[in-house]
Amino acid sequence: MKKALNLEESMQSTIRPCRIRSTGIYLPRAVESEEIEKKYGLPIGWSEKYSGVAKRHHVSHEDVGEMGSQAAQSALNHAGLSISDIDTFITAGASTDQIIPSQAAMTLQKMKGGNKARCESFHVNTTCLSFVNAFKLATDKLQFEETKYVLIVASEVSSFGIGPENWETLTLFGDGAAAVILEKSKDQKSGLVNFKHQMYVEGIHAAEIPGGHIRKWIKDYNYDPKIHHFQMDTRNLLRLTLKYLPDFINDFFKSTGTSWPEVNWTVPHQASKTGLNMIPKIANVNPDQIINILRETGNCISASIPMGIHKLISQDKLQKGETLFICGTSAGFSIGSLLYKHG
Amino acid sequence: MKKALNLEESMQSTIRPCRIRSTGIYLPRAVESEEIEKKYGLPIGWSEKYSGVAKRHHVSHEDVGEMGSQAAQSALNHAGLSISDIDTFITAGASTDQIIPSQAAMTLQKMKGGNKARCESFHVNTTCLSFVNAFKLATDKLQFEETKYVLIVASEVSSFGIGPENWETLTLFGDGAAAVILEKSKDQKSGLVNFKHQMYVEGIHAAEIPGGHIRKWIKDYNYDPKIHHFQMDTRNLLRLTLKYLPDFINDFFKSTGTSWPEVNWTVPHQASKTGLNMIPKIANVNPDQIINILRETGNCISASIPMGIHKLISQDKLQKGETLFICGTSAGFSIGSLLYKHG
Repeated sequence: MKKALNLEESMQSTIRPCRIRSTGIYLPRAVESEEIEKKYGLPIGWSEKYSGVAKRHHVSHEDVGEMGSQAAQSALNHAGLSISDIDTFITAGASTDQIIPSQAAMTLQKMKGGNKARCESFHVNTTCLSFVNAFKLATDKLQFEETKYVLIVASEVSSFGIGPENWETLTLFGDGAAAVILEKSKDQKSGLVNFKHQMYVEGIHAAEIPGGHIRKWIKDYNYDPKIHHFQMDTRNLLRLTLKYLPDFINDFFKSTGTSWPEVNWTVPHQASKTGLNMIPKIANVNPDQIINILRETGNCISASIPMGIHKLISQDKLQKGETLFICGTSAGFSIGSLLYKHG
Repeated sequence: MKKALNLEESMQSTIRPCRIRSTGIYLPRAVESEEIEKKYGLPIGWSEKYSGVAKRHHVSHEDVGEMGSQAAQSALNHAGLSISDIDTFITAGASTDQIIPSQAAMTLQKMKGGNKARCESFHVNTTCLSFVNAFKLATDKLQFEETKYVLIVASEVSSFGIGPENWETLTLFGDGAAAVILEKSKDQKSGLVNFKHQMYVEGIHAAEIPGGHIRKWIKDYNYDPKIHHFQMDTRNLLRLTLKYLPDFINDFFKSTGTSWPEVNWTVPHQASKTGLNMIPKIANVNPDQIINILRETGNCISASIPMGIHKLISQDKLQKGETLFICGTSAGFSIGSLLYKHG
């Protein structure tokens, strides 16, 4: 065990040095809204009007590991690295390919050189916020000498858990994967400024797939959309968000020396059209500085946030010295956010 | 964000200060081997002779969250703490109650005061090594000022994934939960000495439950023990262990200034009778210093290691200044180990 790097105070706040080195994405076959609307007899145009989604992607031959490994390899290629350079490999998300082994093994196994990789590897799940919690774990690790690179990959298949019984979830959710490589930074110019994640378990049933696992084991419960499809109580989720988000955000920014409107870029979880449209109103943030990819990819559970980061990085929008605010809610109910400065 | 505590060199090695504050356990109804043997027509005595298990525990009314919350509450009671004192709450393991939300929310929700708890909470899965990876994440967090207490709880229901088609797994596995609270330590007398986790994905199919999730989604695959029960290729697992474990252990101890025989206590994953019996032979370790609870609780996946730690702590065996070596293998295939000094 080596000792932790010294952390210094920055002008703005104490920063935990680290840096987004590269990103990658994988999207399966695009499914236009009209295709879904025709297949299930929805009025043409319903999807974009009510869910805000014109196109999402659905797996055909791919599984969670396949998409994740492609996104991770793309991030490695952009960084000029290989999997053997990675110290910690984190898979994040609600979807997994098998009950056993863990998704970390399932995804690593599909990667080029995965069979020779010897990195610490584990899976993290807080559903939609899995990537955000994993990002924070990565920044912790990057404060110690033994960790130089952490690869986080969020890969989600949501299309298996939706159906025509609920038009909103049917048209809102998509599949896909995105990966981010975080590397050590030696100075305070780049790093994590703040992080916060809190549970509000009074909302435990506000968003759920009740079946499939121990509480309704497969032996006793055959496939039934009522228990194996995603259910969300939109009114209750909105109530919880309005009840807890404002104080959460105030507390979050209090110690950072900045405020949400001063942040350069916001990548929110692409939860829903209503949720995304609320942000500029409650936070007085310029909509041009909020990444909105809902129309093109839908809600991809934990993969939406790294997809947003990928868009910022691949379009060369996030400049040195700029700040990135990541925020979202998840089933549980929980709220998470993270402020990062790029250098 | 506060800055990291300074880490100093100890005599033995650099230690990341932290301390096991307390432990807790929950075991459901005990199931004697004879009960299983009679029910499924196994020769009486087969279980203890071949699997080494006289008794294990099976859930009746309990689920993963129920057992986990009981074990976690017991650890809190032993520490004189409540869930609101916990900064980070980590659920670890292969079993979960629902597909969505994450097990962290499911377990927190069942805890006394869980509805008011606002700790960072997430689920970590590396199957049998989930607790070990979570322990390391906790020690990372405890190096920073904002984290004082981390509660890790491993809860597993393995009894749903076994059946009479395989006498070994049927008699080997058990259900149960165990929790450990780690707290900040201000000096080098207590803490993590070393940690290592590596994947060897050539063994991806050596231990698995192929069904239940995305690769064989419930809609297309009704319950079938062939895909929803745990399968292990004992010969292949033994081959992988013999191929990789010796070098792994040598590398692990190289930087610690100590060796396995010098360690005071070893808590191995309770993988199997064969696996446990191998340790004193390959490592020249005194069997009295190896915690063996296989006979009384079977293999409880990720809960076995914290159950072993609970035994050490509750029987007042682990004394100040003594070292504890944790090691195991998991599906994936992976090997993990951790050396801790108690102060």
